[in-house]
Amino acid sequence: MSYSNQPSPNDVGVAVVGAGYWGPNLIRNFLASDTTWLWSVCDLNMDRARQVLGRHTSVEVTNDLQAILDDPRIQAVAIATPAGTHFGIAKACLEAGKHVLVEKPLALSSIEAERLVNVAAERNLTLMCDHTYCYTPAVRRIRHEATQGTLGRLQYIDSVRINLGIVQPDADVFWDLLPHDLSILDSILPAGIQPTAVSAIGVDPIGAGRSCVGYVSMTLPGEGIAHVHVSWLSPVKIRTTIIGGSHRYIVWDDVNPAQRLSIFERGVDVSTFQTPDDQRQMMVQYRSGDMLAPALVESEALADVVREFADCIRTGRRPLTDGTSGVRILKILEAVDASVAARGQLVPLEQQSIGALR
Amino acid sequence: MSYSNQPSPNDVGVAVVGAGYWGPNLIRNFLASDTTWLWSVCDLNMDRARQVLGRHTSVEVTNDLQAILDDPRIQAVAIATPAGTHFGIAKACLEAGKHVLVEKPLALSSIEAERLVNVAAERNLTLMCDHTYCYTPAVRRIRHEATQGTLGRLQYIDSVRINLGIVQPDADVFWDLLPHDLSILDSILPAGIQPTAVSAIGVDPIGAGRSCVGYVSMTLPGEGIAHVHVSWLSPVKIRTTIIGGSHRYIVWDDVNPAQRLSIFERGVDVSTFQTPDDQRQMMVQYRSGDMLAPALVESEALADVVREFADCIRTGRRPLTDGTSGVRILKILEAVDASVAARGQLVPLEQQSIGALR
Amino acid sequence: MSYSNQPSPNDVGVAVVGAGYWGPNLIRNFLASDTTWLWSVCDLNMDRARQVLGRHTSVEVTNDLQAILDDPRIQAVAIATPAGTHFGIAKACLEAGKHVLVEKPLALSSIEAERLVNVAAERNLTLMCDHTYCYTPAVRRIRHEATQGTLGRLQYIDSVRINLGIVQPDADVFWDLLPHDLSILDSILPAGIQPTAVSAIGVDPIGAGRSCVGYVSMTLPGEGIAHVHVSWLSPVKIRTTIIGGSHRYIVWDDVNPAQRLSIFERGVDVSTFQTPDDQRQMMVQYRSGDMLAPALVESEALADVVREFADCIRTGRRPLTDGTSGVRILKILEAVDASVAARGQLVPLEQQSIGALR
Amino acid sequence: MSYSNQPSPNDVGVAVVGAGYWGPNLIRNFLASDTTWLWSVCDLNMDRARQVLGRHTSVEVTNDLQAILDDPRIQAVAIATPAGTHFGIAKACLEAGKHVLVEKPLALSSIEAERLVNVAAERNLTLMCDHTYCYTPAVRRIRHEATQGTLGRLQYIDSVRINLGIVQPDADVFWDLLPHDLSILDSILPAGIQPTAVSAIGVDPIGAGRSCVGYVSMTLPGEGIAHVHVSWLSPVKIRTTIIGGSHRYIVWDDVNPAQRLSIFERGVDVSTFQTPDDQRQMMVQYRSGDMLAPALVESEALADVVREFADCIRTGRRPLTDGTSGVRILKILEAVDASVAARGQLVPLEQQSIGALR
Repeated sequence: MSYSNQPSPNDVGVAVVGAGYWGPNLIRNFLASDTTWLWSVCDLNMDRARQVLGRHTSVEVTNDLQAILDDPRIQAVAIATPAGTHFGIAKACLEAGKHVLVEKPLALSSIEAERLVNVAAERNLTLMCDHTYCYTPAVRRIRHEATQGTLGRLQYIDSVRINLGIVQPDADVFWDLLPHDLSILDSILPAGIQPTAVSAIGVDPIGAGRSCVGYVSMTLPGEGIAHVHVSWLSPVKIRTTIIGGSHRYIVWDDVNPAQRLSIFERGVDVSTFQTPDDQRQMMVQYRSGDMLAPALVESEALADVVREFADCIRTGRRPLTDGTSGVRILKILEAVDASVAARGQLVPLEQQSIGALR
Repeated sequence: MSYSNQPSPNDVGVAVVGAGYWGPNLIRNFLASDTTWLWSVCDLNMDRARQVLGRHTSVEVTNDLQAILDDPRIQAVAIATPAGTHFGIAKACLEAGKHVLVEKPLALSSIEAERLVNVAAERNLTLMCDHTYCYTPAVRRIRHEATQGTLGRLQYIDSVRINLGIVQPDADVFWDLLPHDLSILDSILPAGIQPTAVSAIGVDPIGAGRSCVGYVSMTLPGEGIAHVHVSWLSPVKIRTTIIGGSHRYIVWDDVNPAQRLSIFERGVDVSTFQTPDDQRQMMVQYRSGDMLAPALVESEALADVVREFADCIRTGRRPLTDGTSGVRILKILEAVDASVAARGQLVPLEQQSIGALR
Repeated sequence: MSYSNQPSPNDVGVAVVGAGYWGPNLIRNFLASDTTWLWSVCDLNMDRARQVLGRHTSVEVTNDLQAILDDPRIQAVAIATPAGTHFGIAKACLEAGKHVLVEKPLALSSIEAERLVNVAAERNLTLMCDHTYCYTPAVRRIRHEATQGTLGRLQYIDSVRINLGIVQPDADVFWDLLPHDLSILDSILPAGIQPTAVSAIGVDPIGAGRSCVGYVSMTLPGEGIAHVHVSWLSPVKIRTTIIGGSHRYIVWDDVNPAQRLSIFERGVDVSTFQTPDDQRQMMVQYRSGDMLAPALVESEALADVVREFADCIRTGRRPLTDGTSGVRILKILEAVDASVAARGQLVPLEQQSIGALR
Repeated sequence: MSYSNQPSPNDVGVAVVGAGYWGPNLIRNFLASDTTWLWSVCDLNMDRARQVLGRHTSVEVTNDLQAILDDPRIQAVAIATPAGTHFGIAKACLEAGKHVLVEKPLALSSIEAERLVNVAAERNLTLMCDHTYCYTPAVRRIRHEATQGTLGRLQYIDSVRINLGIVQPDADVFWDLLPHDLSILDSILPAGIQPTAVSAIGVDPIGAGRSCVGYVSMTLPGEGIAHVHVSWLSPVKIRTTIIGGSHRYIVWDDVNPAQRLSIFERGVDVSTFQTPDDQRQMMVQYRSGDMLAPALVESEALADVVREFADCIRTGRRPLTDGTSGVRILKILEAVDASVAARGQLVPLEQQSIGALR
């Protein structure tokens, strides 16, 4: 293939709005994509946008969102602005007929997120959440195992996502980190993540004015539980998720690139020789079987996000991480807020009919 | 020193009651001790006791507890029987004038445990809990750092103790594993572990009839929190405790013998440049400083348990892990039971005056 | 089974000679064995022997080897004395009609070792080397894979055995550590370890008067190579062996109990599309396939050494680690000495017909 | 600072020659640099160059080296072509008055490399080797410790650099991987790396036609030794270097980003209580002291290579990795070739006066 400096007719014309923390990653991947053409980067701070693009670029820079909305070359917009502005910008883009990719969280409330879903549906536009982790080779493999049934019934999910992190000015540790775990679980569980109840404890040991350490328990339909520990205050970086099924267990250690996934052949065996008088004869046998660490091809997940976005725009199919996944996650975040305020009280969630769309 | 096959007059005469799971470890360490003399092992199953002692031993075996109680050579008894029998055997031993070392838990309730404390106090006998972990080089070092004040104010303690484990017939995962973490914290915190409230979630995903996975949050006096995750259902063995202070953080990874302790020079820094109109200017700086991994001399903790027991018997001083520590731990376990039954509801604990004894 | 304090008629009567560094481990395992009866421990320092046995034992202690040789109850002797005395004591024991188990190295020269092999053969006695590693679950599994042919042709073996170690008074680092790797390879390779040539470099950076760091290369029959790095001067403990075959690779990390063995499904693929004019078109493809970590049952290898010794005595079969394996290892150690003296020069070894005995 | 799409007068005008394996990394860093201006990329395959630059670039592409040489805007050239062309292109660039940065190895022989050094010196041009590792935070810190004397006398350096790698068409494993270790040592040792003798063993177990596994021993002036193991055939990626000094040891584990450097407080202690009759009383004590893992700020080393190159061009100072370091490394590679051909024979090296230039 011969490279040219011109867009091809098949390229999806794109703009990125927001060149702060996450925007540069989106920009880099749109620049490298051979199915999209990046026309413009929009940021209130135009120098920041220029610095990200570098001095040898042909991409335009603007601080005027309206110019993006009015530009007929731009079919799609990727939004990486502060969370509080997601809803307004995404709604404006959709109403201007643009397909939209939004950094997490989709909005600040599930009500807002549902409105975005509805606007996109009415206009037959793609609304996609940039839940990057769902496109990593590790999560793809976990999803494959879960949907193929090799894990059996999911019983016990435990996720730890802790590190030294900067205290965000506009989000607590739940809103900052929990969407990662929720989106991952949402993409793994057959009906998305729809807990029946949530309990959360938030702690602010350093007096930062918001939760810096958090623990969340989610009761899953059936007997399962998912627990997530998030923290900005850990001197060690741990990103380990245990996905326990009735047949197999997966341990995902995301800070070990040489062996991210370990699939344990068997997990736990319950032999029930219940005698009439002695219910206590039920026993769990030690059964640590062989472990398989599948070879994963390393690839940049965000490149696949861009590819999925472009492909959905062209074909009209739903993205893996569509707007309804963003809604499900926001409903849980809202329940977490309520539980934290009530010092850990169990908050029930109604089963969302929206999940049935998948 | 010349070795002889006879007890010396200074030896504390000892019997071990219970030769099942933990008893053999106690027996081995009493046999190797040069300050105690093991006269007898008592087990209802005498063959089991004989098998533990081996065929070349001069130690006696009995299945008659009364013979132990009546034996004037025996000054002290170590109890490693099922938890339900601890109270009865310990009380009988104390009333027969024997010093007592009890495997965890000290009893099945704090009421029983307090009675044992009182009986021992009335008779000036040593009552010691075999909280083995408190005698490991790692916990000794953590205690040293905590009591010297080098960690600053303790803010955030997170402990994970998970593995594939056998479902106990007479205990859930809290009663099986949590006493380890509680006893460790009890020996580290200046006034022992006395949370103001406890919240716990127990899960039984495999239908074993009791909690196999558990999460416990404890609100510590001041702003701190301690959270513990225990599980019998993890295919990987993790034993990691993070002890976060305002000055330093310690990460204790007990499955890494080459580097059990990592002391991070600084943890988190809060710069508060609060402007009148903008509370959000409070920031946490990234401050991952140098890390020190102190050289620890590997030693068997149980040998130090035996040494402490013998030394306290001879000097009359309180053991590090005395009966009151057992009481504090049982009060928490009782609160955990109550919270699990109430699906995670916060259970307040009254501050125990007993802690002031230390 | 009911335990008694008397030997059974089937027990092999045993004595251990030497209660220093390794002897206590042998003693502990003979005490726990139910197929041998330990009558006596012999050491020039009788107090040391008594201390090892403890104060509650019925085992006799002596400093008189002749008493062992004359004792008709003693059918077999395990020798754990300084290496310089192995030959003399082993020869005396064999000539007195005793079966013999010798700590590594079997003797100080291959000539001596061959004499022991011959004496044992003449008298139909078991002569076994205590090559403990060969009885670990990890090495048993590697041997299984190698002999089943799942690895393919062995091409590349690399072993690292380094740690902070004490400088031995009577051995350099090669004689101290290399026998472990040699015995392991000897038990894995179908015809035992019989390199065609050896090259070794020894270094004494601290002026200890003997090699403290060593590198050994062995040319294996065929195209393969085995390389071993041994050191007393490493601040980190590494015990990693890579066994590379044409089909599969095994990585054995002995300091990681949770995952000692990793079997890589495929290793390296050579596609040879040699064009007449361009030999350089030969390519190795990246082929990191799935990895299997087999579940290994942890067990004490030395218990299996004792079991093998007793079983061979009773059945007359050859032990896995018989005298001829000791001879093969000593021939290599002698070649290492010669190569070190010649500053790394390649020293050829004649193929030992003794290997054919296996 | 306001960004513009025009070079500033202070920018060093640059071209990159070669857009294959390593070139893209150079291009990316020159694009991001604010002290250089990338005018052109030259590759025989212009499409490859265009693909690297992407479709939104203003950088020119050419397949004509002469155009680069003739371009007055271009003051400096970075060369990342196949090794066999380094000498010719670098010489042409220097003779055209351009400063030159060359990917390793500097040339195919030390004679060629010395000619480049001389040409650069005659014309007062900067000649720099892109020894990227020397600019990593880890190697910077090791160099700091070594030059400050905190390590004491260097005694024992052991480096392992193994992975599954592609068999290079124009280099064996020594020429492919060894320059990394040699350049690192060259930047750490006070007089650069100047061994007195080299011994190397190369193995080709897969019939690739060149060494795929290699072991190199280098005798350092004084008593020290450096040993390097390189391999393309390891299923596990290991990059561990032990730098042992008389006072401290450093272990550098480059695949562990959370703890790349471990500095062991003390290494090995030799107590010499030599009695007249017993030389063997010399002892090494176990002395594993505390370990410090310094906090390293992660940064891209190649950005610092670009910065160093630009800075040396502007100030005329010698780069850390100047042409003479390339010469020293090539002299060792030549000795390695000779030793491999002689099956590991020790090849002496004359001490290079060129090292004195530093």
